[in-house]
Amino acid sequence: MPDLYDVAAIGNAIVDVIAPCDDAFLATNGLDKGAMMLVDQAQSAALYAKMAAGVETSGGSAANTVAGLASFGGGGAFMGKVADDWLGEVFRHDMKAIGARFENAPLVGGPGTAISMINVTPDAQRTMCTYLGASVEFADHDVEDDVVQGAKIVYLEGYLFDAEAARRAFAKAAGLAHGAGRMIALTLSDAFMVERHRAALLGFTETQVDLLFANEAEVCSLFQTDDFDVAVEQLRPKVKLAAVTRGAAGSVILSQGERLSVAAHPVEKVVDTTGAGDQYAAGFMFGLARGRPLQQCGTLASLAAAEVISHYGPRPQVSLKDLAAAEGY
Amino acid sequence: MPDLYDVAAIGNAIVDVIAPCDDAFLATNGLDKGAMMLVDQAQSAALYAKMAAGVETSGGSAANTVAGLASFGGGGAFMGKVADDWLGEVFRHDMKAIGARFENAPLVGGPGTAISMINVTPDAQRTMCTYLGASVEFADHDVEDDVVQGAKIVYLEGYLFDAEAARRAFAKAAGLAHGAGRMIALTLSDAFMVERHRAALLGFTETQVDLLFANEAEVCSLFQTDDFDVAVEQLRPKVKLAAVTRGAAGSVILSQGERLSVAAHPVEKVVDTTGAGDQYAAGFMFGLARGRPLQQCGTLASLAAAEVISHYGPRPQVSLKDLAAAEGY
Repeated sequence: MPDLYDVAAIGNAIVDVIAPCDDAFLATNGLDKGAMMLVDQAQSAALYAKMAAGVETSGGSAANTVAGLASFGGGGAFMGKVADDWLGEVFRHDMKAIGARFENAPLVGGPGTAISMINVTPDAQRTMCTYLGASVEFADHDVEDDVVQGAKIVYLEGYLFDAEAARRAFAKAAGLAHGAGRMIALTLSDAFMVERHRAALLGFTETQVDLLFANEAEVCSLFQTDDFDVAVEQLRPKVKLAAVTRGAAGSVILSQGERLSVAAHPVEKVVDTTGAGDQYAAGFMFGLARGRPLQQCGTLASLAAAEVISHYGPRPQVSLKDLAAAEGY
Repeated sequence: MPDLYDVAAIGNAIVDVIAPCDDAFLATNGLDKGAMMLVDQAQSAALYAKMAAGVETSGGSAANTVAGLASFGGGGAFMGKVADDWLGEVFRHDMKAIGARFENAPLVGGPGTAISMINVTPDAQRTMCTYLGASVEFADHDVEDDVVQGAKIVYLEGYLFDAEAARRAFAKAAGLAHGAGRMIALTLSDAFMVERHRAALLGFTETQVDLLFANEAEVCSLFQTDDFDVAVEQLRPKVKLAAVTRGAAGSVILSQGERLSVAAHPVEKVVDTTGAGDQYAAGFMFGLARGRPLQQCGTLASLAAAEVISHYGPRPQVSLKDLAAAEGY
């Protein structure tokens, strides 16, 4: 199979509603700062009514990563489920406008396109309440064989472990990818998600995953410890390759037992951390797919994360390709 | 009638889709830089398919002004027409979230909520293609008598001169406002709109308008001249009060034959000029409604305009009240 894409991603197809809030708003509404909470349609409507005026923009963790990859000049494909409504059109438009493949048929006659209400506190932390809507209808028959087999890296969004049908889709994608000699990458997505599915995630990671992305909270949750170094040491023998992020403290790359440190890229003012992990993964996988050394993969990852946290919204607002070139990469 | 609101505005209820573009995109699609062009549903869909990935956010010129007024701490009301669709819900949510009144019933079973596709070039100029959808169904029975009679200033969006029904609504609002001793403000909105309705706008201005807002291109179009000073001199005897903006060159206030100059507020980097005129009007009317001297009204106006052009989107992203306080107002 020829190389058709640098990265093919499977994830929730979500449109974000982003608005500022204060800490009191989170407390009043029982929201854990920095976490992602699933809500049903009624809870979604009730929360939206209380939110400040916001902006709407295409989101979804893995979809954001594909957008970042495309911004670096990489070839990306996305698989996920929207509904045949206005939000679904927006999501599809934005994916195609960045030059990525997105061909899954929309869901007709079911719930609407998924929406994530993202409340951003003055400390730039984002707290998400997601109504999954149509996105949970993604199933194994939506996995496009030739896209998976033709992608250098197949990237799976951990959030989908919440949906039984999506886990079957992951198993199918992993089988297809490995059969074609491709690499499977997984992001742990959220510490609470890890708590809900710890055993399944560990099992999947050990047997199917070639590249794991996690942040500090997620890797600590995976090994039920508060100590980052303990968690990293436990992770080390279980993964071929992993990148663990620590916000302003940079990130750690584990490769065949080796441990590399990567500094965070400096940011003048952190506005909204939404998409930081997604863009880190974009930069890392772009570097990896293009054969760059691991340290440089981490540097590209940090650069992309720094860009996205300097403004509202989960996707780059400038060309990451130009940004990387300006930094000499 | 007691003072219920500082400003009650009538305008098109629009959701904006904002995306970056280059000059070649404007040329290829026959778009005049800086102008607002009306498109039908088919043209709207065709243009959207060609646009870059963007963000969606509540817009509409007069609605943006109400948002700015609310951000200053002013009491605002908006009258306009959305459809009973998702975009209409977003528009209503955002208006209520800023604390403004918006109670007009949505249009059921007709065209969808109006959408404006705003392409922003690297020089920060915005070029708009608007599909008016449900917003043109705004009619005189949608004018809320008590809101108009209870507002210190009734602000009318010139764009509505394109719709016959809305012009009847303007006539009704003007009658109600003047009967209650209120002030009518009008913005000329767009140079091409002025060209289409020059005579009607001049007549309405001379007989009904107490406060006129225009930019350089609009006032020049009104008097069919290329010379700003000639246009201003022609305008001077026709208006009680007017504020004419000139971008970075500041603005001119005409009051009972007197002419005042106001400097533009400095901006580090102009990102997107969408909403500059809308926020200028917000600051000016907030000052006027609160009895500030005219020069200070102009300064508040310039401050609000400077904030909005420093980021994507037509509404303030920080509290204009706090911003004004920090500047000593």
